[in-house]
Parts: sequence; C-alpha cells; structure tokens
Amino acid sequence: MPSPEQFHGWLGHDSSAAKGNMRWTAFTPKPFAPTDIDIKITHCGICGTDIHTLRSGWGSTHYPVCVGHEIVGHVTRIGSEVTTLFALGDRVGVGAQSASCLKEDCEECSNGLEQHCGKGFVGTYNGRYPDGSWTYGGYADYARVPAHFVIKIPSGLESQDAAPMLCGGITVYAPLKKNGAGPGKRVGIVGLGGLGHFGVLFAKALGCDKVVAISRSRSKSKDAEAMGADTFIATSEDEKWERKHSRSLDLIISTVSSSDLPLSGYLRLLRTNGQFIQVGAPEDKLPAIAAFALIAKGCTIGGSQIGSPKQIEEMLQFAAEKGVKPWVQERPMKDANKSVVDMEDGKARYRYVLVNNAIDVQAML
Amino acid sequence: MPSPEQFHGWLGHDSSAAKGNMRWTAFTPKPFAPTDIDIKITHCGICGTDIHTLRSGWGSTHYPVCVGHEIVGHVTRIGSEVTTLFALGDRVGVGAQSASCLKEDCEECSNGLEQHCGKGFVGTYNGRYPDGSWTYGGYADYARVPAHFVIKIPSGLESQDAAPMLCGGITVYAPLKKNGAGPGKRVGIVGLGGLGHFGVLFAKALGCDKVVAISRSRSKSKDAEAMGADTFIATSEDEKWERKHSRSLDLIISTVSSSDLPLSGYLRLLRTNGQFIQVGAPEDKLPAIAAFALIAKGCTIGGSQIGSPKQIEEMLQFAAEKGVKPWVQERPMKDANKSVVDMEDGKARYRYVLVNNAIDVQAML
Repeated sequence: MPSPEQFHGWLGHDSSAAKGNMRWTAFTPKPFAPTDIDIKITHCGICGTDIHTLRSGWGSTHYPVCVGHEIVGHVTRIGSEVTTLFALGDRVGVGAQSASCLKEDCEECSNGLEQHCGKGFVGTYNGRYPDGSWTYGGYADYARVPAHFVIKIPSGLESQDAAPMLCGGITVYAPLKKNGAGPGKRVGIVGLGGLGHFGVLFAKALGCDKVVAISRSRSKSKDAEAMGADTFIATSEDEKWERKHSRSLDLIISTVSSSDLPLSGYLRLLRTNGQFIQVGAPEDKLPAIAAFALIAKGCTIGGSQIGSPKQIEEMLQFAAEKGVKPWVQERPMKDANKSVVDMEDGKARYRYVLVNNAIDVQAML
Repeated sequence: MPSPEQFHGWLGHDSSAAKGNMRWTAFTPKPFAPTDIDIKITHCGICGTDIHTLRSGWGSTHYPVCVGHEIVGHVTRIGSEVTTLFALGDRVGVGAQSASCLKEDCEECSNGLEQHCGKGFVGTYNGRYPDGSWTYGGYADYARVPAHFVIKIPSGLESQDAAPMLCGGITVYAPLKKNGAGPGKRVGIVGLGGLGHFGVLFAKALGCDKVVAISRSRSKSKDAEAMGADTFIATSEDEKWERKHSRSLDLIISTVSSSDLPLSGYLRLLRTNGQFIQVGAPEDKLPAIAAFALIAKGCTIGGSQIGSPKQIEEMLQFAAEKGVKPWVQERPMKDANKSVVDMEDGKARYRYVLVNNAIDVQAML
C-alpha cells in the first residue's frame, strides 16, 4: 500500500497562520473508505479562500487546518467501490469541494449541481465528512478524497496550469458559460487578480466579441492586454467611466471580494437584459442599489459558486483544446508561508502554485 | 373626420391631483401623424404609477398631466402610413408605452424589446414625443397614439378585463414567461395588490406546480386561494417563515413598491439557481444583501419593466384562451377622483377600471 498512514502538511494552528505561521506537521487523514482515492500531491495553487480561512475571516476556522484546494497529483490508492475508471499513477485534480450528499433524491446532486448541494456540501479543507472526520487540503504531501470529486487532468495541460483552474478557473468559467459568453457577447471582468485573470483568458478563448478588464487603477492594463483584453477601464482614474461605457456590456463577472465596489456604476455598463455575476465574496454586504437600475434595463445581479466535477472536467478539456495558459508563478512547497504572505500582499502575478519535489511516479506505486 | 380637434380628460394641475383634485378639462393632443391612430376610450385601468405621477413621486411631473395607461377603446382614425391592419371601430388597447425609436439599428427595437429602448422610450403620459408634444393618458375621452403601440384586443376578452392587463398584467406576465414559469416550477408572488393578483392568476394559468402568495398579513389569504394560490405566507405573522419555507421556490416576482422588504428572507425561499424579480419600483434603494446569499445557491435578483407590444399581444391571446379573469371593479369615468383616492387607500380589490358611458361605435364613425 503506497499511501502512508499519516500525511504531512502545512498546518495552521490559529489565525496567525495567515501571517506566515503555518507549521509542517503530520496529520491523520479521514479513514480510507472504499469510495476514496489517495493522491500524492505534486502541485497546489494558492487561493484567496485559503487566507480567509487561515485567519478565520469568514467565520471560525477549525484548527489545525491544512488549506489548499487547487490540488494536482497522482493516484496512489483506489478504493474497491470506486466506479470511475482510475488507474494508479493517473494525473488527477481536486477542487474546492470534496463531498456532497450524492443522493438520488437530491435535486442538486442528481442534476450535476453538486456545488449547490444544500445537505452534504463538504469543502476540501475545514470541512467535515459525514463520518465526523475533518477535511485537509493540498499544502501537503498527500490528499485523501472521495473519488466522485477527483477529476482526471487531460494530457494537454501542464500540472501547474491545471492546478489553479480547479478553483480559480472554474469560479469564472462556470458563470461565463452559464450566461452565454461567446461570439456576439461583450464581457467585462471586474478585478484582475487570480480569478479575474482567468476571466479575461476564458472570455477571450470562448470567442467573446469584446473582453473588457475593469480595475481600480491602470497598473495592470498592459498585463490585461497581453491576456487578451480589448479595453481597460480604471474606475478610480478614468473620468465618467460609467457614462462613457454605458450600455456596452452583456455580462460582467465581478471577482473582487471587497464590498466597497461601485455597483451602481457597473450596472450602468450593462446593456438591456445584461447580467452582473458576483463570484468574489466580500465579508460585508454588497452596496444597496435602486430597483430602477434593474427594472429599466431588465438586468440581473447574480452569484455563482465554483462548479461541479463535470463542469471542471469540461473546463479542463476546453483549456487544453484552446491552449488557455494561465499566468502562474511556481513556488517550492517549502516556501508556503512566504507565498501566503506575498499572496495577501497582492504580489501574485497572477497565481502562486506550490510545487512538491519531482516525483518518481513509478517509485510510488 | 370623427375625432375632435380637442380631447377632454381628467387633468392634474399640481401634486394635489393625487388627492382627488384632477379637473375635467379640454386639452390638445399631439398633431396627428400619418403613423398615428385615434382611439375613443371606453375603459382605463387605474395603475399605481398614475398616483406616483400625479403627486410627482418619482421625480417632477410635467403638469398639466392626464394619467392612465391601461386604455381600451375603439379606433376612430387611422393614419395613412399605418401598416398594421386596423379598421375603424376595431377594439384596441394601449399600455404604458406609446413610442420608442423604432430604428433598425436599435438593438432593443429591432429585437422586440421596445420597452427597453434607451433612445426613444416615451411613456403614455407625462412623456414627450420627438415632435416636442406631450403625451396624455387614458382618463379621457380620446387618445392619440402611434400605431406601433396600439394592440388589438382578442374577441374572447372583455374590455374591463383587458384594460388592466395592458400595464398591470404584462408587468408580471413578462417576467413569469421570461423566467420559465410553467409546469415543474414553483412560483412565489410577493404583494397581493393589482400586480400581485395578476401574478397569482397568470402563474396558475401557466401551469406552475405551485403558486405561493406572499404578503405581510393574512388578510387577503382567502382571496389568494380563490385566485389559485396553493400556499400563503404572511411574513409579519408567520413565525420563522424564511426557515419553514426555505429552498421551496424557483422564482419569486416581487410586486411591492416599498423598499422596506425582507429581501434576505425572500432569497432564503429560493432553490438553487432561483430567481427573484423585482417589478415594483420603490422610491428608495432596495435593502443591501450579502453576496453569499446569491453565491451559495447561484441565485439572481433581477428587474423587469412592462413588455413589448408583441408580448402584450401574446399575453392577451393567452388570457383569452385560458379564461384568465382578473378581479376588477368598474367605476364611472366621472368618479376618477374618488377612485384615485380609494386606490391610494388600498381599497381596490384588485383593480379599478374607469368606464366611459356606453359607446355607439357606429355613431362615432
């Protein structure tokens, strides 16, 4: 049996972990169930949620916690009841969700909407399985995850590129697809961080007529252009941007997680029947808006949360076919603490990916 | 020529008009254009917008104003360039819009979304045509309206029933249709006034699995049941209504125009991918909500504004086929002042319709 009894990872023991105080520690994963898969981790992206969780920003975190939910690695153990065709050594990924109720009478799970399962959603870390054991994420050497939430990585994608797609990528890809991004559509992406940069890349790859990057300052405009943005709006620098660009977009995906956003201005950018989808989750409420802003143009404000395993699979396939290449910075797993601090300081351009030392897959099996 | 040079109507001369101080006065309609139609009015519904406008509630009203945009009557004059097949004496209706740009390069007008035309939307009253003349509504003997916004009334509908559909009806019918109300869907209607009662009637006629009326008190629950509601939620009387009915609705249409609404509670009632559509327009902003309320379930908050002439036609046909029978109270046109006051006092059950004396259509021609 190639997986060890105990795994090792960067554990946060209190909220100081967000400031670079995680410690490399042994931990005991959930008891191996016949529907589980073990993964030897090669890559793990650093997501904003990791930091919110490390510092108990979205509510009390259960410490010790091992964050990381953009996991790529190789299969080292397959439960006897796993029905999907996995082989030892397969390159696979795990995103932000590692369980749902999966019951036939669950409207969400039976309709490919596992990410919205109201009964059994379990996050890949800081979550709790029905057996009572806690989930541990990917800043680690191994991960143990129910097979339903393990996704094969297509051969056309490099591991460091696939990893950040598993949460950051799908978070914007899913609402782009759901809301018809493609030829004939003009799409705006608010915020040019990890999520936003995926928004520009995917909107472009989907063939949208126009991709507009929207940020406070103009500091990232050259990067946005290189990613494929046709236009850049700097809301704190461009005068009368709401008026100048009014009614120019069919869809806006907002990736910022500050609640101090000019929402009414964004709504002015929408065309008739336009949609504004919030995927960044501010800790405070969104600004209040006038109903007229929605009524006059038949617009909507919505939210979207990651994607189902099937949608992730579709996205990875699409990315491989279209050659979508995220801008990632690889960091050795040993530098996790420094990387978390750099991420929080806004230094990522545009996603850090922690990398474990080269793995000899054959040796593991 | 059967239309007079001057029309007569109940004109409001200042904001006291909303308190029953309109005066029956002669007025000069827009100059007759070859694309216009004159209508001898038989019926006109009383809409909440009439009162907002009479008292300058949504911004300064241009006085004198003649309100009323749920107009039914008979054609008395047809411009030489009218292309739709109208005959003198035809029974027709006019809703809340009487002009848009109608240009071929207008994305809205060329796609059957005239109600969202950003360049040339003109309301049926208190609006201004491109020639500079003001629009006058249906608390009057005659109306002059561009033919594009004149809709034939199907023979299966009585005039007093058709009239309030032209604004009140279409305001809820359009978002019900757009958001898939029908078999398999559970729909909530917030507010049981003129609009809300149409919401219940149409949701039922569309074959929704479940129609839920949502109001503050239980006072209208028997009426709601008689209209076809399966369930009634009284938000100020039922304990823990948000929890008890959580995740029970696919679509909510909110017809209330108060901004003091328990929006976060309503959102809890939505299922995954559920939609909350606001059609009532509060003068203040909507309550602020947490982004998580939208993200976790993939929900949206939207707005909807009346409907296009084509949608109105479709609705009238549907209502005639399904025998949708609104609850109207007919009032003689001479009692317009009293009726406006009664409407504002919330006495309508559920729509007042002003009626001009019986018309001998033959005599008019």
